[in-house]
Amino acid sequence: MGGSLVDLNCDMGESFGAWQIEPGETVLGHVSSVNLACGYHAGDPLVMERTVARCKQHGVAVGAHPGYPDLMGFGRREMQLSPAEARAYVIYQVGALKAFCEAAGVPLQHVKLHGAFYNAASDDDRLASAVIEALLALRSWGLIVLARSGSLFARRAREAGLTVAEEVFADRAYNPDGTLVSRRLPGAVLHDPAEVARRAVQMATQGWVAAVDGTPVQLQVDSICVHGDNPEAAASVERMARELRAAGVRIAPLREVAGREPAGR
Amino acid sequence: MGGSLVDLNCDMGESFGAWQIEPGETVLGHVSSVNLACGYHAGDPLVMERTVARCKQHGVAVGAHPGYPDLMGFGRREMQLSPAEARAYVIYQVGALKAFCEAAGVPLQHVKLHGAFYNAASDDDRLASAVIEALLALRSWGLIVLARSGSLFARRAREAGLTVAEEVFADRAYNPDGTLVSRRLPGAVLHDPAEVARRAVQMATQGWVAAVDGTPVQLQVDSICVHGDNPEAAASVERMARELRAAGVRIAPLREVAGREPAGR
Amino acid sequence: MGGSLVDLNCDMGESFGAWQIEPGETVLGHVSSVNLACGYHAGDPLVMERTVARCKQHGVAVGAHPGYPDLMGFGRREMQLSPAEARAYVIYQVGALKAFCEAAGVPLQHVKLHGAFYNAASDDDRLASAVIEALLALRSWGLIVLARSGSLFARRAREAGLTVAEEVFADRAYNPDGTLVSRRLPGAVLHDPAEVARRAVQMATQGWVAAVDGTPVQLQVDSICVHGDNPEAAASVERMARELRAAGVRIAPLREVAGREPAGR
Amino acid sequence: MGGSLVDLNCDMGESFGAWQIEPGETVLGHVSSVNLACGYHAGDPLVMERTVARCKQHGVAVGAHPGYPDLMGFGRREMQLSPAEARAYVIYQVGALKAFCEAAGVPLQHVKLHGAFYNAASDDDRLASAVIEALLALRSWGLIVLARSGSLFARRAREAGLTVAEEVFADRAYNPDGTLVSRRLPGAVLHDPAEVARRAVQMATQGWVAAVDGTPVQLQVDSICVHGDNPEAAASVERMARELRAAGVRIAPLREVAGREPAGR
Repeated sequence: MGGSLVDLNCDMGESFGAWQIEPGETVLGHVSSVNLACGYHAGDPLVMERTVARCKQHGVAVGAHPGYPDLMGFGRREMQLSPAEARAYVIYQVGALKAFCEAAGVPLQHVKLHGAFYNAASDDDRLASAVIEALLALRSWGLIVLARSGSLFARRAREAGLTVAEEVFADRAYNPDGTLVSRRLPGAVLHDPAEVARRAVQMATQGWVAAVDGTPVQLQVDSICVHGDNPEAAASVERMARELRAAGVRIAPLREVAGREPAGR
Repeated sequence: MGGSLVDLNCDMGESFGAWQIEPGETVLGHVSSVNLACGYHAGDPLVMERTVARCKQHGVAVGAHPGYPDLMGFGRREMQLSPAEARAYVIYQVGALKAFCEAAGVPLQHVKLHGAFYNAASDDDRLASAVIEALLALRSWGLIVLARSGSLFARRAREAGLTVAEEVFADRAYNPDGTLVSRRLPGAVLHDPAEVARRAVQMATQGWVAAVDGTPVQLQVDSICVHGDNPEAAASVERMARELRAAGVRIAPLREVAGREPAGR
Repeated sequence: MGGSLVDLNCDMGESFGAWQIEPGETVLGHVSSVNLACGYHAGDPLVMERTVARCKQHGVAVGAHPGYPDLMGFGRREMQLSPAEARAYVIYQVGALKAFCEAAGVPLQHVKLHGAFYNAASDDDRLASAVIEALLALRSWGLIVLARSGSLFARRAREAGLTVAEEVFADRAYNPDGTLVSRRLPGAVLHDPAEVARRAVQMATQGWVAAVDGTPVQLQVDSICVHGDNPEAAASVERMARELRAAGVRIAPLREVAGREPAGR
Repeated sequence: MGGSLVDLNCDMGESFGAWQIEPGETVLGHVSSVNLACGYHAGDPLVMERTVARCKQHGVAVGAHPGYPDLMGFGRREMQLSPAEARAYVIYQVGALKAFCEAAGVPLQHVKLHGAFYNAASDDDRLASAVIEALLALRSWGLIVLARSGSLFARRAREAGLTVAEEVFADRAYNPDGTLVSRRLPGAVLHDPAEVARRAVQMATQGWVAAVDGTPVQLQVDSICVHGDNPEAAASVERMARELRAAGVRIAPLREVAGREPAGR
């Protein structure tokens, strides 16, 4: 397992105007890639500029995190976008962040959809195809697509010729088919940092996790998604990072991880 | 004067969602550069994508038209932005449009501020400097700055090493110091198409116009700003273009005009 | 049928800032009630103030037209609101319009949901109940609920003790169960003004219409919804109004119609 | 001084969507009136509904806090509104909050402008008059206007026949003319809780405060504005309230304070 590599990604730049939502310094010391809000569900130009600078300073890779145009709902409410809207909203938001990266001399590494947009595109062929069209149109920028491990979106993006990285959730329960147990169901989110860290290590080194009914679910594990905007979450990330390293897993940004041979295969 | 060149520019992409404000086809047949709204005062991602495609089809050059974040006021109300806000808002909007240009395989030629932002930055050193900082940060994109002829902003941008094009208004009365007569004053806007065309020709070929008191005002005339969102305006543009050509002036996009020797000198 | 009464309602106040979408004067001369956008999907405070004044001048009754918080999508895209959000968004928008009515000395007559909100609440029990809660909370204002004829929402609102008026669409094809044929299907919208007028008269005087398969659909016909933001639509409304009057139907605002005995029974 | 009465007011409901800015419970235990954001600079319908409920539970009086339509700038940036816009924006926002008060069975007590709108209207005759027009149009609602002590706005509102309450700032330095020292100048904000409490007591019992140059400034002291969204500020409010009571001043909502004889005269 000495060669194991995994990216840790978290959301960032989710402040807006006078309002603050940001991961703490602890988390930034452990993640290798961050997903920056682009002004539609969170983030504003000042926040974006400041967050890109903060990423540069911490040496973490920057990705765009396009969401639905729904500040009031933080992009968490499903909206029925047409494929044309989905495509154009991705181009707009990715472009806006690209300019801040350009201005700061930082590469834009990847794109990961946010919230309800992420969920909807994961398994909806029309929506996934629309987002893929947007990224093909921007293909010269060499962006990596970060998608849910095993999702239709990941598969379609790879078929379309994009570079795809797949992410897992060490703190979420899985269904036997590889989808996540809905947050509305009990046990959907794991709160014990020891258990979360143990699962992260198993995912990163062995490429599978047990579903709620015990079925082993095979996963492509390029990245583990973590949350760090409260002290508990930050402590959990710290522990996960420590145990991954102890297990011989190197934490590295997506651009190093994507493209290598799949983990645990 | 056989070598005279001038750009004609107009605003475009000012629709939003279900609402339409667009210049007609006639105008698009005459202008050489258009300024596209970027979502802050007008325009949305679908409008931007569609407008870039329409520009490509008509062979007119595309520029970004960043405005204040004020949809309800169409960017026409003065807002006191800090320099940091001004800089970041320009980067955000220019970046968003750049992505649509990239996706369509169309170059992004220039940047012209919109409405109250244009007015405020024309003569305010702090604001002008903030916008210039934004454009220097994106310097690798080779954007031309389109500014009011004789403005502080034009001068500062040139001093900062940016490529600058200066525009005039054939249908607006000038003060002796080269500023425009306020729209609140009588006679600020000229409505006679013959007179507007005559002034356009004189500006393009001789580089000056008579101020309201008769004083000749020297102008750098790289571009003439026209409006085309009503039938009258469109007729006026058509006449202006015809008379410019009759006077031996070639209408050409900014990228051909900027950099040559100043007209009429 | 000499005693027949029907309300004609249309949307209004759908301009926003510099953008105009308004029914023409012709339509205003025929409708008896209008639904005013309240700033979430369209409308802004100046538009609302001006539209209330215009209604007062034409003697048409004013209703609130709350929509989803989606200017860019004009409230036409389904958004998954929680019941608490739906309730609060209705209270907010109705309150804002109520203030303009208060300021103009005009009664606020009714509430009709807009676009995707209207569609979703028509047949979804949770959403319908949330909107009904909002209207019960504002019960002292004596608002009439204007709902799709035969909808679950109309039934639930009546059961909850609200005054309900039911509307039909003379220019839309009906399914045998009384729902509208989806606009995505051919034949969903009728374009022949003669046919539309004939159906309007039959609906208003006999209380039924033939579904696409010929099945007679019984309808409560308190109001007929019309559209008037293009010249064709306006001509169709004019004809409908003329033929309704010729058939002995009096066009009267909802407050006169709601509460009387159901038409055609 | 046994009969002294003063209101303590603070801002509330400044959260938006997923973002939280709220005063703590300590502060709510001491203030008598709160100013609720109405959705333009902060606040959304869910926040408004929840905040009205929280006010009801704490027995504090509710006021509307209309701001500029500038979420990104939190209403703190000057925007050049026309008088018609200012009037309509106040009617809209006050109406929206009024509906939540109606729904909760809580009276709407007062209106206080927010941020840059507050500052601009305090001393600008056109803007002040526009806001006064809005409040006259809603006169039947019996709202108290809460304005800066000694401001042109307070004077004009009183001349127009509105019930006016005047507020002071115990933690801000005053100029000899009764205006506040700009926050950009050193010493503009007082941070010592003991000093702030001492000034509050003097203002409430004697009706004056020493300006930065020692000049005594006479003030109408109906209310003292406090801030409570950080622990320090909350401690300062607690101390102020305790010392006011120790000095025989009763803290009471505006509706009890406004209308009585001016304090300290």
